Amino acid sequence: MLITYICTWLKWTDLMNACFSGKLLVIPMDGSHWVAIKALAQAMGRRGHKVTVVIPEVNIRMGPGKHYDTVTFPVPYDKASLNIIGTNKHLMEKSSESFIQDMRKRFAHMQRIADFLHTTAESLLFNATLISHLAEQVSGFDAVLTDPMVPTGTLMARLPSINLLRGIPCLMDMKAAGCPSPPSYVPRFFTGFTDKMNFMERTINTLVSTYLLYKHFDHIAYQFLGEEVGIAELLSDSAIWLQRYDFTMEVPRPLMPNIILVGGINCNVRNPLPEDLESWVSGEHGFVVFTLGSMVSDMPVKRASVFLEAFRQIPQKVIWRYTGQIPDSVPDNVRIMEWVPQNDLLAHPGARAFITHGGSHGLFEGLCHAVPMVMVPLTADQPDNAQKMASKGVGVVLDIMSITTEGLLQGLNAIINDTRYKERVQKLSAVHKDRPIDPLQLSVYWTEFVMRHKGAQHLRAAVLELNWIQYFCLDVIALLATVLLVFVILTVKCFKVCLRKLGRKRKQE
Amino acid sequence: MLITYICTWLKWTDLMNACFSGKLLVIPMDGSHWVAIKALAQAMGRRGHKVTVVIPEVNIRMGPGKHYDTVTFPVPYDKASLNIIGTNKHLMEKSSESFIQDMRKRFAHMQRIADFLHTTAESLLFNATLISHLAEQVSGFDAVLTDPMVPTGTLMARLPSINLLRGIPCLMDMKAAGCPSPPSYVPRFFTGFTDKMNFMERTINTLVSTYLLYKHFDHIAYQFLGEEVGIAELLSDSAIWLQRYDFTMEVPRPLMPNIILVGGINCNVRNPLPEDLESWVSGEHGFVVFTLGSMVSDMPVKRASVFLEAFRQIPQKVIWRYTGQIPDSVPDNVRIMEWVPQNDLLAHPGARAFITHGGSHGLFEGLCHAVPMVMVPLTADQPDNAQKMASKGVGVVLDIMSITTEGLLQGLNAIINDTRYKERVQKLSAVHKDRPIDPLQLSVYWTEFVMRHKGAQHLRAAVLELNWIQYFCLDVIALLATVLLVFVILTVKCFKVCLRKLGRKRKQE
Repeated sequence: MLITYICTWLKWTDLMNACFSGKLLVIPMDGSHWVAIKALAQAMGRRGHKVTVVIPEVNIRMGPGKHYDTVTFPVPYDKASLNIIGTNKHLMEKSSESFIQDMRKRFAHMQRIADFLHTTAESLLFNATLISHLAEQVSGFDAVLTDPMVPTGTLMARLPSINLLRGIPCLMDMKAAGCPSPPSYVPRFFTGFTDKMNFMERTINTLVSTYLLYKHFDHIAYQFLGEEVGIAELLSDSAIWLQRYDFTMEVPRPLMPNIILVGGINCNVRNPLPEDLESWVSGEHGFVVFTLGSMVSDMPVKRASVFLEAFRQIPQKVIWRYTGQIPDSVPDNVRIMEWVPQNDLLAHPGARAFITHGGSHGLFEGLCHAVPMVMVPLTADQPDNAQKMASKGVGVVLDIMSITTEGLLQGLNAIINDTRYKERVQKLSAVHKDRPIDPLQLSVYWTEFVMRHKGAQHLRAAVLELNWIQYFCLDVIALLATVLLVFVILTVKCFKVCLRKLGRKRKQE
Repeated sequence: MLITYICTWLKWTDLMNACFSGKLLVIPMDGSHWVAIKALAQAMGRRGHKVTVVIPEVNIRMGPGKHYDTVTFPVPYDKASLNIIGTNKHLMEKSSESFIQDMRKRFAHMQRIADFLHTTAESLLFNATLISHLAEQVSGFDAVLTDPMVPTGTLMARLPSINLLRGIPCLMDMKAAGCPSPPSYVPRFFTGFTDKMNFMERTINTLVSTYLLYKHFDHIAYQFLGEEVGIAELLSDSAIWLQRYDFTMEVPRPLMPNIILVGGINCNVRNPLPEDLESWVSGEHGFVVFTLGSMVSDMPVKRASVFLEAFRQIPQKVIWRYTGQIPDSVPDNVRIMEWVPQNDLLAHPGARAFITHGGSHGLFEGLCHAVPMVMVPLTADQPDNAQKMASKGVGVVLDIMSITTEGLLQGLNAIINDTRYKERVQKLSAVHKDRPIDPLQLSVYWTEFVMRHKGAQHLRAAVLELNWIQYFCLDVIALLATVLLVFVILTVKCFKVCLRKLGRKRKQE
C-alpha cells in the first residue's frame, strides 16, 4: 500500500519505474548495430531488470556486459571467415576492371553479407536445444528487444517487442508500422535525394519506393513457423519502434504514435579517456579522430599513405583506428590504434575534426559533440548520411576512390580553420541535444512501458487492419466516380432528350 | 562562462531552461479553451518569463493571474449579451416545433457564436491603438502562444508561434501542419465514427474530409493584412502545435514532428478543496460531480427536476454546478454551487462518478483521476468525445433531450456499483498517465524551445512547399501511366505488324 502511494507520488518522474522490475530478452545484431542495443541492455540491467542477451559464439564485437547475462549459440563459421566477410577493404581498391565487373564484385560482396546474416539467423532459429531452452523461459520474459534489420528476434519470440533500429532498406520498417512515407518529399535510401526533389527525382523516388527486399527472410519465417506469414506482417505486431533518427540529420516526415525517435542514443554513454591517451591528445592544436567504422579497419597501403601524407602537413595530432599494414614512415603526430574510444575522443574539448565513413553512430557522435567532419562514405546508408550532413554545412564529403593528399588536406583545413563549419555544427548540435528527455532514458522508458503493459496496444493504428484498397479508399473513389459518371451521363441524356423535343416542337411550328 | 558550464551540465534536465528567460505574447480564446492556455501562461510566468496575455474587456472566464500581465481591449458587447450568446440552455429544451424549425434554431445559434468570435477578433485586430502599442513591443517578444481555433494570434503577430488547441473543425490544423489524415481510418469531427469504419462510413468520412470552413477569417485576414493569404497558409508557418489529444481517448494516427501531444495538460493543476467543501464531501458513500461545462450552467426547471429526483435516490452526495432557477425541493444530499473546483473534486478519493457534457477538458480530468462517467453531450465535439469514451467502457452516454429519472439512475448505479467501469477507467487512466513527461512540463519545454531557437525550423516538413499535385505525385503517376500506355500500344502494334507479316508469308506459301 505504501509502495503504491510512493509510486503514485513519483509518477512523471524518472524514479517512477523504480517500482517495477522485469525480464527482458535481447536478440541483437552485430557490427555497429550492437552499440545502441548494448547501451540500452546495460541501462535496463542497471535499473534492476534481468536482461538476457542471445549472441553467436563467433561475432565481430558483441560480448558480455556488467549488467546483463549472455546466452551463446554455435555458428558454422570462424573468426577468420567472419573477418573476410566483414571487410570492406576492396571498396577502397581502385579497380582496373570494367564497370560491369566492378559492380558484379560489389554485388557479390553484398550477397556475401546477406548470406552471412541468413546463416547466423538460421543457426539460432534452427538450434532446437537453444530454442526450446529459451521457449521454456519465454513465458517468464516480459518483452523482447531486437534490431529487426535481421528479424530473428521478431521470429523467435512471440513476445511484446521493442525494435531498436536505424531503419530497414526500402522503408520496410515504416511500412510495417503503417506509417505514410509520401514519396513526394520523403527520400528513399540509396537515392541521395533530400526532401526537396525535382520532377525527375520524385519519379525515381516513387519508382524506388515500390521495391521490396527480405524475400529470403520470408522463406526462413515459413520454415521456422510452418505458416505462410511475411516478415512485414510479423513486424507490424511490434509494440514500439525506437528509431535512431533525428530531424537535425534527417528530413521531417510523418511518424506513427509508436515510433519513438532516439537518434544519438549512445552519445552520453561515456568513459574518461585512458591516461596515456588523454596526455597524448593534449596540446594547443587539438587533434583529429579518424575511424572508418567497425567493419573497416584496414585499407590498401597506397591509400593509407595518401592519408598519412596529409596528416604530416597539419599541426593537429591524429588518432587513427587502423589494423592494416602500416606504411614505412608514420608521422610523429599520428597515433595508430587497433581500437579507439571514438565517442570519448569526440567528446574531448581538443577534438578539432572527425574523419568518418559516415555511419550513423559516428555522425550522431560527431553531431552530439559538435565536431566538424570529413566524410568518406563507403557503402550502405553512408553516402546518404554524408550527403545530408554536408548539406547542413557541418562537413565535407570526399570520394574514397579518388582521394588525394591535396584534397584531404584542403578538406581538413577547411573544417578546422574556416570557423563557419564549427559554428554551424555547434548550432545544429544545440538543436539536436535540445530535447525534453535524453534518448537513452526515453528508450528505457518505452521498453519498460511495453514490459509494464504487455505491449502498447493503445498506440496501434487501425491502418494495420486495412488492405491497400481500403487504405487508399480506392473502393470509395470508384463508387464516387461511378456516381459522378452516372450523374453526368443522365444529365447529358436528359439534355439531349430535351433538345430533341424542342427541335420537334420547332419543326411542328 | 561559468553559467555556460552549468547549463551544459544541466542539459537534459528540467533545470536546463532555468538559464533562459524571455518574453511571451499570449492571445487566448475564451470559454473552456482558456483553461489550458492559462495553465501554460502561469507555468511560463512561474519560470521567470515575462508573459503578456491579451484579453477582451468583457469575457466569460478570462482574467488576471499571478504570473502574467494582462492587456485588455474594448468590445462592442456587454456581459448580458455575452451570457445570452454563450448559453446552450435551449439545446436542452424539448422543441414542439418542426424538425426544420428546430435545425434552423440550432444553426442560428451556431451562427451567433461564430459572429461573436468574428466580432471579438475584429475588435482586437482593428483596434489601431492597441495593435500599434503591441507592434512596438512585438520586436521584444520571442514568441506568441495562441489557440488558432480563432486565429487572431496567428494574424496579429508575425512571431514564431506555439498553438495550443484541441483541434480545428475539418482538421484544418492537420492540413496546415501538412499532416496526412487518411480518411480510411482517421474519423472526422462530428461523424461519430471510430477508426474501424465499414464501407459506407468510409465513404461518408471521405466526403466530409473535403469540406472546408473558415471563409470569414480569410476575409478578416485580407482586411487586416491587405494581402490575399488564407488562414490555412498563415497557420502552416506555426512552429509548434501543442494538441490536447491522447491515444487513450483518440484513435492512433500519423503525426508530424512539430505536433506535440499534451492531452490532460491541466490535470495536475490542482489546489486543496475549500475546508467546508472538503468536510461536506467526506462520507462513506462518496460523491458525484455534476457540471456541464463553462457555457452551460443553467437548464429548464423541468429538466433540473429530472436530475434532482434521481439524485434523491442515491446514497452519494452530489455537487452540482448550476446557476439557473432552483426547483422547490432540493434533496439534502445535493449541493448546488455557482462554480465548482471540478478538477480538485475529481482528484478527491471520494469521487465516485462524474456527470459531464463530454467537453474534452472534463473528460481528460475524469480520465486522469479515474472517475467513471455519465456523459450527456450537447454540442460541438462533445457527442464524438462521449462516444469514444463509452467505447472504452469507462462510462455511459445519455441523451439530454430524452433523459429520464429512471435512465439517469440506472446509468449512475451502473458506473458506481458495477466495478468493471471503475476497473476499466483505472486501467485506461494508468496508461494515459504513463508518459515520459508531464504534458504541462512538455508544453513549457516546447514553448521555451521556440523562444530559444526563434522557431522550430528543423521540424518543418517539406510537404508545406508542395502543391497537391506534387504532394500526391499525380504528375509522376501521369508520366508513368503514359509510359506504360505507350509501351502497351507499341507492343500491340508490333504484334499486329508481326501477325500481318506472318499472315502474308503463309499466303505466299
